[in-house]
Amino acid sequence: MGTRIEEALRLRFTHHGDTAERYGSEFAALWRAAADHSLGGKLVRPRLLLDIHRALSDHDVSEPPLTAIDVAAHIELLHYAFLLHDDVIDGDLTRRRRPNLIGSLAASAPGSTEEGALHWARSSAILMGDLLLTAAVMGFARADVPDATRLGLLDLMEQTILETVAGEHTDVALSHGIVAPDLDTVLNMSVYKTATYSFSLPLRAAALLAGASANAERTLTTVGRRIGLAYQLQDDLLSVFGDHRSHGKDPFSDLREGKETAMIAYARSTPAWPRIERRFGAPDLTVPDAVEIRDLLRDCGAEAFATDLIGDQLDEVHTLLADAELAGDIGPDAAGTILRTVTRLEGRQA
Amino acid sequence: MGTRIEEALRLRFTHHGDTAERYGSEFAALWRAAADHSLGGKLVRPRLLLDIHRALSDHDVSEPPLTAIDVAAHIELLHYAFLLHDDVIDGDLTRRRRPNLIGSLAASAPGSTEEGALHWARSSAILMGDLLLTAAVMGFARADVPDATRLGLLDLMEQTILETVAGEHTDVALSHGIVAPDLDTVLNMSVYKTATYSFSLPLRAAALLAGASANAERTLTTVGRRIGLAYQLQDDLLSVFGDHRSHGKDPFSDLREGKETAMIAYARSTPAWPRIERRFGAPDLTVPDAVEIRDLLRDCGAEAFATDLIGDQLDEVHTLLADAELAGDIGPDAAGTILRTVTRLEGRQA
Repeated sequence: MGTRIEEALRLRFTHHGDTAERYGSEFAALWRAAADHSLGGKLVRPRLLLDIHRALSDHDVSEPPLTAIDVAAHIELLHYAFLLHDDVIDGDLTRRRRPNLIGSLAASAPGSTEEGALHWARSSAILMGDLLLTAAVMGFARADVPDATRLGLLDLMEQTILETVAGEHTDVALSHGIVAPDLDTVLNMSVYKTATYSFSLPLRAAALLAGASANAERTLTTVGRRIGLAYQLQDDLLSVFGDHRSHGKDPFSDLREGKETAMIAYARSTPAWPRIERRFGAPDLTVPDAVEIRDLLRDCGAEAFATDLIGDQLDEVHTLLADAELAGDIGPDAAGTILRTVTRLEGRQA
Repeated sequence: MGTRIEEALRLRFTHHGDTAERYGSEFAALWRAAADHSLGGKLVRPRLLLDIHRALSDHDVSEPPLTAIDVAAHIELLHYAFLLHDDVIDGDLTRRRRPNLIGSLAASAPGSTEEGALHWARSSAILMGDLLLTAAVMGFARADVPDATRLGLLDLMEQTILETVAGEHTDVALSHGIVAPDLDTVLNMSVYKTATYSFSLPLRAAALLAGASANAERTLTTVGRRIGLAYQLQDDLLSVFGDHRSHGKDPFSDLREGKETAMIAYARSTPAWPRIERRFGAPDLTVPDAVEIRDLLRDCGAEAFATDLIGDQLDEVHTLLADAELAGDIGPDAAGTILRTVTRLEGRQA
């Protein structure tokens, strides 16, 4: 299945790259670089769509229909568009310890100053993000499905983009202290910025394509949010408490960047906060500093709080799915498929 | 007619602003600021669409149909999305001597450093650009027209965005010396970056909505490019030779920014270039410096070259329209409407 999605994505990029050739070699090179950086991922979102689409479909489908593969591939393009603009906004030059598109373009910019090379690379990433965002919406707009389904897909895409952008906007506002980092704001931000497009979108698109009921779609929306929030909370935990050799991220980067997570929001309400605050967000945070904050976050109950919150999300997923199964909104196959995703999540170390 | 377009735009912004409220007051404020900055423009693009749509329509339409107004309004949203990302890329904080969205947001950012305020404002502009780009594509995807027309509109929108982004990408490459500033590259860049979406897009959308022939659409595509290029060349001339009290731009800003225009590309091939080059693109360019470069551009023939090139574009528009009228592809009404646009352009001082 991964191969089919890869193939669909590769086709999209080849098509665009060929057209780009007409506008000059630099523009064609940008498309090739974007293809290099976006292909080869784990394809979590499109795989989720196809898995749940098969489980929701009445008839037995051994091969996913072309339309579902196509919609799934466009969700991956949307993901990549968001990553690009996110990296521009965050000033990131790497992703998972390798240069991201911006880092690669800046490193290979011919005869420029460092500042010029960065400007060139960031501008290119803004523009490529625009193209991939357009491609994603176009993919939904041109889906070969009945009119009502297409309009449903478009509403879903529009709401998803609005919510993701709103989440990113709040994230930037939090990083500048423009909104207060209370727990509700931080949790909503996580749901909007990541859960909506990473989990609710593929689940709901699968429901629309499989002709599932409005009740089923509503359940899947909430299920997606809960799974996505659990995923984000686990990411937060891994960044501070995880084994940094295995999860592939910069050790303690969240603490160094002063990232406003649910754990930090909790810690603010405890007597440990003044001691955490001293070095939290310091660009020159040392490992001993980070270890001290980590221990404080454990001792003040923030780690347990995040772990419990993950448990709450997953419990709610179980309850929602059991209720939906009882009401006949979602079949046991679909519920089982989602629960397997959750199980993979629970054991996740990276 | 302007009122009907304004009304349609205002409705879009009100709708989005109301939805945004759900995601926090900062996000709603961003929508309000975007509405403030994008409403009140001259609406050149949507007006052109409605004018030419009326002229191309068989039946007499005193009121433009709602669908045409709606598509026209979404072209204005696309224009604003491009302006926002362009301003981020160029680092501009003003437009027509007033603060742009970035300038306003940076000035009102609460309790941040100047660097922080700029980051907040630019990040917000990237995100708002994403939302408006999405809105523009959605507007085309949901147009209440027959399937074939809708697919035509989507192809048009996709090609327009690709070409505009390619033009902007080349513009950035030129500014970093990554591509050589030869005349062809500079002229193509102007057509792609501005002419395609500002002129070809409204003309072609009008043709599609009015059910004009493929030949008519092909003629209008080229006509739009020629008008757009003439418009850009006139802009270049005004920035250097215009009366700075009337055209509302920063005097000599093109020379101070080292903008690669057709005039400059021409001047590079003349013996005057070494003297122009000395201060061209100097951030601290003085008025006497600029006046010297201006006189050199006149004496070396660059001004006349640009003026002639504008004449060539407008001659070609006349020829194309006359041929299309003869062939019965475009009626005299439509040709006349376009020629009036051209005439307004010829007399333009700002």
